[in-house]
Amino acid sequence: MIIKKKTHWFGMLFEWNGSVLPKLLPRLLIIFIYSCIVVYFREELMAYQLAINPAIFTLFGIALAIFLGFRNTVSYDRFWEGRKLWGALLNDTRSLARQVHTLVEGSNYTAERSRFIKLLTAVVFALKHQLRNTDTEEDFKRLLSPDDLNKYRNKIYKPIMLLNELGLWINNAKMEGRLDSITQANVDTNLNKLSDIIGGCERIASTPIPYTYSILLHRTVYIYCFLLPFGFVGSMEWLSPLVIVFIAYTFVALEAIADELEDPFGIEDNDLALDAMANNIENTLAEIDNKKIEAIVPSKDYYII
Amino acid sequence: MIIKKKTHWFGMLFEWNGSVLPKLLPRLLIIFIYSCIVVYFREELMAYQLAINPAIFTLFGIALAIFLGFRNTVSYDRFWEGRKLWGALLNDTRSLARQVHTLVEGSNYTAERSRFIKLLTAVVFALKHQLRNTDTEEDFKRLLSPDDLNKYRNKIYKPIMLLNELGLWINNAKMEGRLDSITQANVDTNLNKLSDIIGGCERIASTPIPYTYSILLHRTVYIYCFLLPFGFVGSMEWLSPLVIVFIAYTFVALEAIADELEDPFGIEDNDLALDAMANNIENTLAEIDNKKIEAIVPSKDYYII
Amino acid sequence: MIIKKKTHWFGMLFEWNGSVLPKLLPRLLIIFIYSCIVVYFREELMAYQLAINPAIFTLFGIALAIFLGFRNTVSYDRFWEGRKLWGALLNDTRSLARQVHTLVEGSNYTAERSRFIKLLTAVVFALKHQLRNTDTEEDFKRLLSPDDLNKYRNKIYKPIMLLNELGLWINNAKMEGRLDSITQANVDTNLNKLSDIIGGCERIASTPIPYTYSILLHRTVYIYCFLLPFGFVGSMEWLSPLVIVFIAYTFVALEAIADELEDPFGIEDNDLALDAMANNIENTLAEIDNKKIEAIVPSKDYYII
Amino acid sequence: MIIKKKTHWFGMLFEWNGSVLPKLLPRLLIIFIYSCIVVYFREELMAYQLAINPAIFTLFGIALAIFLGFRNTVSYDRFWEGRKLWGALLNDTRSLARQVHTLVEGSNYTAERSRFIKLLTAVVFALKHQLRNTDTEEDFKRLLSPDDLNKYRNKIYKPIMLLNELGLWINNAKMEGRLDSITQANVDTNLNKLSDIIGGCERIASTPIPYTYSILLHRTVYIYCFLLPFGFVGSMEWLSPLVIVFIAYTFVALEAIADELEDPFGIEDNDLALDAMANNIENTLAEIDNKKIEAIVPSKDYYII
Amino acid sequence: MIIKKKTHWFGMLFEWNGSVLPKLLPRLLIIFIYSCIVVYFREELMAYQLAINPAIFTLFGIALAIFLGFRNTVSYDRFWEGRKLWGALLNDTRSLARQVHTLVEGSNYTAERSRFIKLLTAVVFALKHQLRNTDTEEDFKRLLSPDDLNKYRNKIYKPIMLLNELGLWINNAKMEGRLDSITQANVDTNLNKLSDIIGGCERIASTPIPYTYSILLHRTVYIYCFLLPFGFVGSMEWLSPLVIVFIAYTFVALEAIADELEDPFGIEDNDLALDAMANNIENTLAEIDNKKIEAIVPSKDYYII
Repeated sequence: MIIKKKTHWFGMLFEWNGSVLPKLLPRLLIIFIYSCIVVYFREELMAYQLAINPAIFTLFGIALAIFLGFRNTVSYDRFWEGRKLWGALLNDTRSLARQVHTLVEGSNYTAERSRFIKLLTAVVFALKHQLRNTDTEEDFKRLLSPDDLNKYRNKIYKPIMLLNELGLWINNAKMEGRLDSITQANVDTNLNKLSDIIGGCERIASTPIPYTYSILLHRTVYIYCFLLPFGFVGSMEWLSPLVIVFIAYTFVALEAIADELEDPFGIEDNDLALDAMANNIENTLAEIDNKKIEAIVPSKDYYII
Repeated sequence: MIIKKKTHWFGMLFEWNGSVLPKLLPRLLIIFIYSCIVVYFREELMAYQLAINPAIFTLFGIALAIFLGFRNTVSYDRFWEGRKLWGALLNDTRSLARQVHTLVEGSNYTAERSRFIKLLTAVVFALKHQLRNTDTEEDFKRLLSPDDLNKYRNKIYKPIMLLNELGLWINNAKMEGRLDSITQANVDTNLNKLSDIIGGCERIASTPIPYTYSILLHRTVYIYCFLLPFGFVGSMEWLSPLVIVFIAYTFVALEAIADELEDPFGIEDNDLALDAMANNIENTLAEIDNKKIEAIVPSKDYYII
Repeated sequence: MIIKKKTHWFGMLFEWNGSVLPKLLPRLLIIFIYSCIVVYFREELMAYQLAINPAIFTLFGIALAIFLGFRNTVSYDRFWEGRKLWGALLNDTRSLARQVHTLVEGSNYTAERSRFIKLLTAVVFALKHQLRNTDTEEDFKRLLSPDDLNKYRNKIYKPIMLLNELGLWINNAKMEGRLDSITQANVDTNLNKLSDIIGGCERIASTPIPYTYSILLHRTVYIYCFLLPFGFVGSMEWLSPLVIVFIAYTFVALEAIADELEDPFGIEDNDLALDAMANNIENTLAEIDNKKIEAIVPSKDYYII
Repeated sequence: MIIKKKTHWFGMLFEWNGSVLPKLLPRLLIIFIYSCIVVYFREELMAYQLAINPAIFTLFGIALAIFLGFRNTVSYDRFWEGRKLWGALLNDTRSLARQVHTLVEGSNYTAERSRFIKLLTAVVFALKHQLRNTDTEEDFKRLLSPDDLNKYRNKIYKPIMLLNELGLWINNAKMEGRLDSITQANVDTNLNKLSDIIGGCERIASTPIPYTYSILLHRTVYIYCFLLPFGFVGSMEWLSPLVIVFIAYTFVALEAIADELEDPFGIEDNDLALDAMANNIENTLAEIDNKKIEAIVPSKDYYII
Repeated sequence: MIIKKKTHWFGMLFEWNGSVLPKLLPRLLIIFIYSCIVVYFREELMAYQLAINPAIFTLFGIALAIFLGFRNTVSYDRFWEGRKLWGALLNDTRSLARQVHTLVEGSNYTAERSRFIKLLTAVVFALKHQLRNTDTEEDFKRLLSPDDLNKYRNKIYKPIMLLNELGLWINNAKMEGRLDSITQANVDTNLNKLSDIIGGCERIASTPIPYTYSILLHRTVYIYCFLLPFGFVGSMEWLSPLVIVFIAYTFVALEAIADELEDPFGIEDNDLALDAMANNIENTLAEIDNKKIEAIVPSKDYYII
């Protein structure tokens, strides 16, 4: 998700990028041409009594309002729940990193602690790749030791299996007397949270809004747009195609945005910036691990996360 | 729930499967024929002053909007809460499996750990069968030892009784010195969560939306549809049956979808894919238990979970 | 709450029981007769310019939509929160029963464990009676020992005082060395949850929707219904009483349902089935306590919980 | 909050107390007189073309619906969150009282336990007085020992400082060997919850709905009411003042209720019954402390909490 | 956020400060002048059939209502979630301060405890500065020792790194035998919560409402306002500019407020009072640390937090 910073209220009216207009242009053109045709044949239409009472569109409007309002809210909730889960991922990995640094004894344990941080970072990248169905190889090579790489590169549920490795790491440290049962239980609670976050992301990714809803909304929107000319050619004649395209734009665009937000882990314009968020997590964990890092400077006009 | 992948915006308008149209066709046909009859007798209607002022439908619309919006939201919330509970089931069983593998001591304890995982899987399948009122026998035979099978096949509240067995397993391991009280308390917390999840599913399954609501909404929708012709035959004549069927379609379909989603654990088209989700849980638990598993490859055009 | 199972879409239109129609009939009759009177005097009405511009009803409609939508949502939320609390009561008592069976040592402790389960069941029934302001005597006699009966029958806050007894039971078991501090803390957490559930039910029962809202909504609905004839006699004459009764039915019924659901612990048709739910909890706890129980078979046409 | 019990549907229409009507009468009178003046000059109005197209009010209605719906929901949410926090206060103080009675050893510790209960009750009253900006002196004298009274009467954040005293009490008991670290941690968790509840109440009390919203809604409602006569004098003449006052009543009353509920800790008619709730908590804590208490009998026609 | 106290209902209509009117004046002026121009050319407009059917605006209204309602709700939710997070920050730092005073042994440990409180306060100010992108130097100098100042002034994620220091402080106290593992785990849980709060604020600050939504709503609002004159000059002539400006005001103002609230951590009029809230936290923590503090007296007419 790359989001432009706020522009002036007037310039914002003519923004091209960032809006869904480019994508919708062909459809709006079809509706425009179709409206013009209807206007052209308006007299025949009247003669055969094919004009629609404008009150009808208010009735349609009720269904449309319910559908669009619902679709819109649900899609945004999915988007925002996805964002919250990735926010929780940031919080929880930070907490685990802090715990490993403050609760696990031994000043000579630096290398092992770094391994834990790397494994933790690998969980984040493994989740990202699973959600986008991309290859983990490159990130795993950077983050995992050769042994771990061999062990985990072919697992089906990679983030969960790496979580297991974190659990074994903790247990190992306990065996060596670096923490006791109480602290282990404390850290384990955060591993449970990580498991909840991973499963939450899988839930959103695997269960879309019931398809029947999408079809019904889609049809209602387009039937509505294609009936509009029959209702207004009588009163507005050649002005009507223009006005109808304006109305169609708002409804069609609303459906299109909702459609993009529905699956927040994708790579469309309005989806979540998983890449930036994963890098951000890697950075903050590295700083906790006393590595030298540099702030990501967002470019002047764009939000990055 | 089998959900087709997104199709092209134009093709989506003519989608047949996946929409509720087939199911609603008879009702829409009745409304169409009925409208035609009203149009045919329109002059008698006018003569006896039986035309309805179109403004009336806007007033009805308020009630309709509240009812449909409410029903729709509540049904979807039930669907999504059901999905969240099964998501939590996945997360929680994974956490328990991880805990048994990383917190319970003893490299020679593999068989016992596998028994725990199988029992855990049996909880999931027992819940599925309880929610759908189907027989657990086949799945229990696959997952339980003969002793456990005899002990649990005739219990009334099977998932809860299996949870008790998991609690006894943990206590047994503690007796053998493989974990201490703290770790036991830690694992027990996850058993509590499982108990909450099971009870949550039972709650949704046993308490539908108050029947009075369903009746009232149902009546309002159909009274509305059957009054519509009296309001529009005057202004649209033979065009009105077609337009009325379009309007009726959106309202009737909205009610029908809400009705399907209300009980998300059923086996209708829009219900949750409990089978696929239970198999998914079995798979991920098996992988944690170091069993060789194969990824479920979703077929090209369908979501599976 | 006795809820009929789904019937056919057509038969549902003429359902008598389960709808609020019987209760509302007198009011609808009044509105019908009143409308007829207004129609009868329609010419005098016109002469004195007492007809209302139909657009007015759309303006009223905004307020009506906000009020009814709000009242409806809030009432249902209260109903559903009540249901969730009783669901949590089921989950939490089950968890406590499991903990007492798996975490408290001693195979010779069966009688004591049964006493705990009975006390736990008594909490549930005490809560039911407190919410409905009915007498606990009969259920307490069945569930409590004579000593406990004497101790608790005259307490004001019975469920909470029984909770204390459960706390003392746990402490006693600790004194006897059957569990340690950690397990006690673990069980105590579930007692805290029980306390939250009891208090949550008291909150809903003691704090209704602010009365001013109820009055304002009530008035708006009826003023609206009584003004309707003045708006439509001009255009619909003798058809208007019928149409007005249909409209009034939807609004008045919506208010009536919301009013019933507002207090979910009552004994009206749409209230929660506290009896069935308490029996269900007693059953599941008894099964955990190794008592022989029989499944409650719901009759063919009715949901029971 | 004193809330009258439900009355008959017909009598409820003419309820005077409990409604906001008395408070709004002057404003409605102004609107009525103003409407009459506009009707009187209706011919001049028409001559100068100052009549407003009634369709305009539907457009205004959109903004009005969004504003009123939003304000209403947010105000009620604040009211209900306030109620939930006080419900949680009840639950949490009960849990702490139970813990002190069942987890802290020593049959000779009764006086100390009673001091804890009194301190806990003092937290509740201190919070009430802080939220209403009233004086704690009287309640503190009744509940605190002279030493504690001197220590805490001049603190700025009284409830929080009393919480500290509770923490010291627990620590003292641990020093004397009456509870161990685990139990202390368990009780401390409930002190954390108390801290959350206190802070939650402070949040609601100190952060109202942004003032800009209140102004904008207020203006929209009154501009709407003052424009109404210009839209309807043409069609309804001398009937319009009456109808306009009815419409104005619903909108103005809705805003007035929302305004009262916004700050739920005040002492207006629709605010929370903090006095009754604090007394209720004092009572239930005293019963847990084995004090003899009497049930508060709600008078026949009124809810008390 | 400086919010004026409630004024009289009549005076509130003419409030200048606190409303968004000053900011919107230029835009409303443009709309007014533009409307006048359209009225002036109304005859040419009619001649070329460029008048818009007023029913069109009702159709637009559906989209507008969905957009504005959605934007409004989401923006307020972000505002309120931000407020809740800062409320949780207050609660959680208070709990940590109490724990350090009641759970960590040693009457000779006062200086160390004060250092902890200062570090805790520094976390709060570091978060404030991070969210507003301002310099921490001044506050860090006041709150941190020279050593800590050097260590943390150049960190990227300052609040999180200070959290680590708090974790080390706790661990140090454990090493010295002032608290045991159980208490450490207890305090550590609150550090986890702090981590969640910090991450929650970062989430809101870094992820605005998808820009595409903002553009679409912005365009719909202004297209609507600029089309309005074409719909009403026919029926209202020279009255229409005035009425149109009133309508435009409500919609444009609604969008403007939503835009301000969207980023609650900024320094616009309607943003959260981070300064006052941070000072409030510093005060209450100092009182727990037995420092002499003075209450912040809010000036007579303004809320301060």
